[in-house]
Amino acid sequence: MFEFSIAATEGEARAGTLRLPHGEVPTPAFMPVGTHGAVRGLHPEEVRRAGARIVLGNTYHLHLRPGEAVVQAMGGLHRFTRWDGPMLTDSGGFQVFSLEGLRKIEEGGVEFQSHVDGAIHRLTPESAMDIQWALGGDVAMAFDHVVPGQASYELAREGMERTLRWLDRCKVRHAQLVAGANSGAGERPPLDSRPPALDTQTLWPIVQGGTHPELRRSSLAGTLDRAPWTGLAIGGLSVGEPKPVMYGILEDLGPALPRALPRYLMGVGFPDDLLEGIARGIDVFDCVAATRNGRHGSAWTREGKLNIRAAAHRISEEPLDPECDCETCRTFSRAYLRHLFMAEEMLGLRLVSIHNIRFLIRLAEQARTTVLDGGFDHWRSDWLRRYHERGDS
Amino acid sequence: MFEFSIAATEGEARAGTLRLPHGEVPTPAFMPVGTHGAVRGLHPEEVRRAGARIVLGNTYHLHLRPGEAVVQAMGGLHRFTRWDGPMLTDSGGFQVFSLEGLRKIEEGGVEFQSHVDGAIHRLTPESAMDIQWALGGDVAMAFDHVVPGQASYELAREGMERTLRWLDRCKVRHAQLVAGANSGAGERPPLDSRPPALDTQTLWPIVQGGTHPELRRSSLAGTLDRAPWTGLAIGGLSVGEPKPVMYGILEDLGPALPRALPRYLMGVGFPDDLLEGIARGIDVFDCVAATRNGRHGSAWTREGKLNIRAAAHRISEEPLDPECDCETCRTFSRAYLRHLFMAEEMLGLRLVSIHNIRFLIRLAEQARTTVLDGGFDHWRSDWLRRYHERGDS
Repeated sequence: MFEFSIAATEGEARAGTLRLPHGEVPTPAFMPVGTHGAVRGLHPEEVRRAGARIVLGNTYHLHLRPGEAVVQAMGGLHRFTRWDGPMLTDSGGFQVFSLEGLRKIEEGGVEFQSHVDGAIHRLTPESAMDIQWALGGDVAMAFDHVVPGQASYELAREGMERTLRWLDRCKVRHAQLVAGANSGAGERPPLDSRPPALDTQTLWPIVQGGTHPELRRSSLAGTLDRAPWTGLAIGGLSVGEPKPVMYGILEDLGPALPRALPRYLMGVGFPDDLLEGIARGIDVFDCVAATRNGRHGSAWTREGKLNIRAAAHRISEEPLDPECDCETCRTFSRAYLRHLFMAEEMLGLRLVSIHNIRFLIRLAEQARTTVLDGGFDHWRSDWLRRYHERGDS
Repeated sequence: MFEFSIAATEGEARAGTLRLPHGEVPTPAFMPVGTHGAVRGLHPEEVRRAGARIVLGNTYHLHLRPGEAVVQAMGGLHRFTRWDGPMLTDSGGFQVFSLEGLRKIEEGGVEFQSHVDGAIHRLTPESAMDIQWALGGDVAMAFDHVVPGQASYELAREGMERTLRWLDRCKVRHAQLVAGANSGAGERPPLDSRPPALDTQTLWPIVQGGTHPELRRSSLAGTLDRAPWTGLAIGGLSVGEPKPVMYGILEDLGPALPRALPRYLMGVGFPDDLLEGIARGIDVFDCVAATRNGRHGSAWTREGKLNIRAAAHRISEEPLDPECDCETCRTFSRAYLRHLFMAEEMLGLRLVSIHNIRFLIRLAEQARTTVLDGGFDHWRSDWLRRYHERGDS
């Protein structure tokens, strides 16, 4: 039910297929982020038509609104949101650790104040598993202690070691939930009569350790000591450290990563990061930049970033990116998109977000094709050169 | 090219077909409002799938942003916005007269301050024609002097008489534009090389006169003195006067309206107004309430108005309206829609707007069917009774 197979490799890059209860995900894959149970501003049909094969749900946001009890009562996140493909939920770890000044970290878990209404909530390894179980994604993520990109060795070690101790607790709790569902007598009474079916969820651990290669290696070793796993995530990157540092960490970890597991680089997904990550053996990515930039009128194109508000686009017949096959580029001119942004018409946000998501998904699709054909490295170098040439991306 | 035929009548209600350069519009018809060249928040495909056969473009808003020069350079509003069906543009009269304190009315025209950047603009009967010609809608509206619903006899008479004088100027200017396009030598040089094709636009006059039946009759008589017309609008209603007053004006005007012309009741379009208007001989409606209410989470249903934020919908599996065939009702639960509004997720605004637009379009479709079948009056009474029963609509 949670299988990963590799069809071809080129250097560290891999072309594979991840099989999950709700469908198959060809990898490398970019996973759009559905913060509030919707990829910001987009209809699930638009996400599907953009080529997405898996989406991410945010435990932190969904726990606050509408609450996992509502989602479970509505039959789980798939049924609630009408996204019927594969879905992964994060654990909320990244979000609560980002609430600087609004959270208290203890060995038991993290107490935090909701950014919505200031109410006090608590996430623990156990509750993060319970919430994700109620949400019902195909993949649940371990509850981890994330530290900033500039974190000292001491702080990074503390976070890394706690992440491993919490991983033990996540594993126990998740196994209980799966066993309970399988025996029909969950340790924790289901909120309604629709518990997830058998084997519908797997748990992936997260490697931490900040920017310190030694800690990253310890984290990976500790994580693998707790095997078996069906996938492996690398977290705590793209959180303020320079890009070469991130690439270095991936290169350093590479040889020690089990080849058979899908590798998910959390929160990373600018176009160049995607290609650099794939070249270093990453299979799955997610990032909010596609929709966040889209909402601000910033579009990725084959020739770098484009600001749709620029006066240059005032009467431009061109699509955002002449090489793009997305619904927006096939239909609308830059002039119209610019007008929508200048007039603050919501449709503009949506149209540029669709483009940006399709742009990343297509990039991952092209990477897969070129790995299968054996031309990945050549294509990647060409692609990055042209993308960076204009110098404003 | 601008034909109207009536297939059946029942009492004053009519089932007809309006033929315009960009297509046919079965009537009665509800026309969604595309303020900034987009029906707020909606993709033209969504508007089409909701059953819209004609949309309205706002001259005031499009003149300010992006400006008619941009629209014309992009090949006209149809090509710019990718709505390829029939389109009507208003004249901006209603909007500039609503700019209380920001506008100066003279016989020549209206000077006003842009609500966007405070810049001074001027609309005259001639410029309103020029702008609408550049926008390129199938139907252009005369530039009228609109007075508030509570306007005195004197003020209403002033506005009504000025509207007739301005109508003369609109007619002259519009005829020049049409003649110029037909001769290939417009009086006013086209902004680019794509002037509208021959006979692509007609001009409809607007009956004014406030809430004073005598003035309304004079306005209609004066308007018909200036015939021929291909359609006729009734403006200055639903601007603050009680609904029975509006219905009374329509009943009073009814016998004097030429049967052969399509009748457009401007800015009117709550569900009950639609049915009451159709019963009084109206063929075409427009109103921003569908999308404005949609953005605020207020949905029309067969049983009256529904506020999707209400706690009652927290875990409701029901669609907004179990009898509705719109994309939203066929796909999403009230619980999910409520969640989207509570989480301030843009998708919610869109989904409820789609429902509201489809609701009105379908109501007009049903009215047409029942007029053709001879059961309109019976259906209308039943419909209104049930709609008003719950008492909160």
